[in-house]
Amino acid sequence: MAEETERMMLDKRVGSSGDGKDMRAVMLSGFGGLNKLRVIKKVIPELQDGEVKIRVKACGLNFLDLMVRQGTIDNLPKAPLVPGFECSGIVESSGKNTTGFEIGDRVMAFVNYNAWAEVVCTPAEFVYKMPDEMTFAEAAAFCLNFVAAYLMLFEVANLREGMSVLVHSAGGGVGQAVAQLCSTVPNVTVFGIASCFKHAAIRDSVTHLFDRHIDYMQEVKKISPEGVDIVLDCLCGENTGKGLALLKPLGTYILYGASNTVTGETKSFFSFAKSWWQVEKVNPVKLYEENKVIAGFSLLNLLFKHGKCSLVQAVMDKLLCLYENKKIKPVVDSLWALEEVKEAMQRIHDRGNIGKLILDIEKASTPLMASDSTETSEAGEEEEEEEEEEEEPEGDNDSKERMPFIH
Amino acid sequence: MAEETERMMLDKRVGSSGDGKDMRAVMLSGFGGLNKLRVIKKVIPELQDGEVKIRVKACGLNFLDLMVRQGTIDNLPKAPLVPGFECSGIVESSGKNTTGFEIGDRVMAFVNYNAWAEVVCTPAEFVYKMPDEMTFAEAAAFCLNFVAAYLMLFEVANLREGMSVLVHSAGGGVGQAVAQLCSTVPNVTVFGIASCFKHAAIRDSVTHLFDRHIDYMQEVKKISPEGVDIVLDCLCGENTGKGLALLKPLGTYILYGASNTVTGETKSFFSFAKSWWQVEKVNPVKLYEENKVIAGFSLLNLLFKHGKCSLVQAVMDKLLCLYENKKIKPVVDSLWALEEVKEAMQRIHDRGNIGKLILDIEKASTPLMASDSTETSEAGEEEEEEEEEEEEPEGDNDSKERMPFIH
Repeated sequence: MAEETERMMLDKRVGSSGDGKDMRAVMLSGFGGLNKLRVIKKVIPELQDGEVKIRVKACGLNFLDLMVRQGTIDNLPKAPLVPGFECSGIVESSGKNTTGFEIGDRVMAFVNYNAWAEVVCTPAEFVYKMPDEMTFAEAAAFCLNFVAAYLMLFEVANLREGMSVLVHSAGGGVGQAVAQLCSTVPNVTVFGIASCFKHAAIRDSVTHLFDRHIDYMQEVKKISPEGVDIVLDCLCGENTGKGLALLKPLGTYILYGASNTVTGETKSFFSFAKSWWQVEKVNPVKLYEENKVIAGFSLLNLLFKHGKCSLVQAVMDKLLCLYENKKIKPVVDSLWALEEVKEAMQRIHDRGNIGKLILDIEKASTPLMASDSTETSEAGEEEEEEEEEEEEPEGDNDSKERMPFIH
Repeated sequence: MAEETERMMLDKRVGSSGDGKDMRAVMLSGFGGLNKLRVIKKVIPELQDGEVKIRVKACGLNFLDLMVRQGTIDNLPKAPLVPGFECSGIVESSGKNTTGFEIGDRVMAFVNYNAWAEVVCTPAEFVYKMPDEMTFAEAAAFCLNFVAAYLMLFEVANLREGMSVLVHSAGGGVGQAVAQLCSTVPNVTVFGIASCFKHAAIRDSVTHLFDRHIDYMQEVKKISPEGVDIVLDCLCGENTGKGLALLKPLGTYILYGASNTVTGETKSFFSFAKSWWQVEKVNPVKLYEENKVIAGFSLLNLLFKHGKCSLVQAVMDKLLCLYENKKIKPVVDSLWALEEVKEAMQRIHDRGNIGKLILDIEKASTPLMASDSTETSEAGEEEEEEEEEEEEPEGDNDSKERMPFIH
């Protein structure tokens, strides 16, 4: 059968050796819908000079991973690929010229793809020791969200006492990190936007909370007619213009994502064009007249393209200090087995999460319904080599009918 | 004669009373060339509630005033008008509900036009007491340049130890203030761009100095291949794109002027269109990918339109502390009588100044050549009522032949 042949070729390309040196990993066979994801066996990556090899315990799942799956971000590597940009786990070995880590160290790390696997190798400058009291799930929820939130608030926007911040997706991982970091500065007003059903859970984390379906510009202006000091926008599209319009003089609008480009399960060229490429360009002269600041922020590019590891290291030191002083604490929405990655992605697609979704490597998957086609093999070293043979039907429909499984 | 009638009508409109309650002031009769400027007598303005009346000693002349004269900035009031946005002098009286100032206080102030006169009334929140050791000329050179430089470096761009700054017009008033403020932060590299003939005078104020006619992008990249952290651009036009291209990740480009719109003596619609309105718009998505920040900064709008007086007051406190600790000191290029305003403007037009041009109210004008048509009446209370009758010929030519008179 054509599908079987394709599967065999895929196994070959991703390097399943079948000789016991394999690991489980989530594989994205191509850009598209949920059916492009499956758990496979794969040869454990070879440790390179300067790298740390981590036996992974937990991985962070971000909206960005959904965009990777759909193929809507720039500079994508070729598929098949193992997604994932962050994980936590235990140091298994260190490469030549790698200093600072011992075997057995509990660590969290950024990875330039390949995080959703049992073993990860990543350069030592992207690895950070975990505080003793931090769980692996917390650690996997920590790096990307808190570093991004910290850099945007304090490095790009210079948040200080008495300022006001508007944050979209206030219930998400970055949103909750932003809210917590804002609370470390005296007298900061946070305007949060989130789906109504999250309001009860996150009400205490922000000053004012609005439904994402209402006209937030009007609501913010009712409370603060002069606008806000900082707008953090992960949506893009029309929200760029709105965010700029809401800024006080000397205020800063930061675009750090484009979740509006995601509508259906697969890449929508219409949404993509509408939200991303056709976002209104900004005339510097208008910024001059209005005394406004517009910034873009991509943590992935900062880490993996712009080489700002030492800045991120310094920020991580400050964040860990805040964590140890109990000023911040990652909010974990739910834990999922690798084999439940589709359900987890659907949950983040539906904006159902409050805080971070975590792939828990040691968690056994829980079959949700008979028709579910994700793999159900037990997690662990002894995983059977066979893989499920069924292909999911193309399209959105089946996955949307599933109930996300919350842990 | 038609010209005399016009003059009489102008006197009527600007309110010369002829009864001894007049003051000398620079009048801009309409937007255009140098010939639109003259010194006239004008009724002393009435003090309003909340204002301070200042007997002016010195006024700052900025490139902005040249743009006002040409009519190339937004939100211009109707002509005739008295130009000028800053002055220093002695408090003569205070309006109702004005607190904080005593008669005789030595002060410096922002004024929303009308600074170039013997007496100025301005709201108390724009008035700041001068340190004892500061001269009136220094004070008139202080407010606009240092407040702008400080706000851009520390409020918009968050300058810190080890960063690098590129500043155009490094020999100008703002440029010299930027250089001095950068030197208050450890290990800051300043790339300055200025005309060659200024290099000897300002070489010590910056780290690297480039001729304004060379390809500065290439020169900066030779020294710092990764670019700079902050670009301060008062030129606009093609420099916006160049400035953005030179930024390091997380770097900030600030547009704070558009001196490139000024070419000839009168407004050039070609230069204007080329440099100002057609400056390339910025795609926020590009900022996202490159982790860059673009800002606009207009101190006038911040003060007079955006109501940021208290922020400016706080900044002024810090600046005066730096002044008193001898960390900063305004650079005065030259002093001019009110009647020499045309020569002074020509000097700033020709980018001939190093530091600030000051109109010194008590200075007697020095006739530069027989054909000079600026008024030569003695400064002071007893000024004769008659005004010079000659009209200057239209056009650039006569003024360009004058040698600027440096003091």
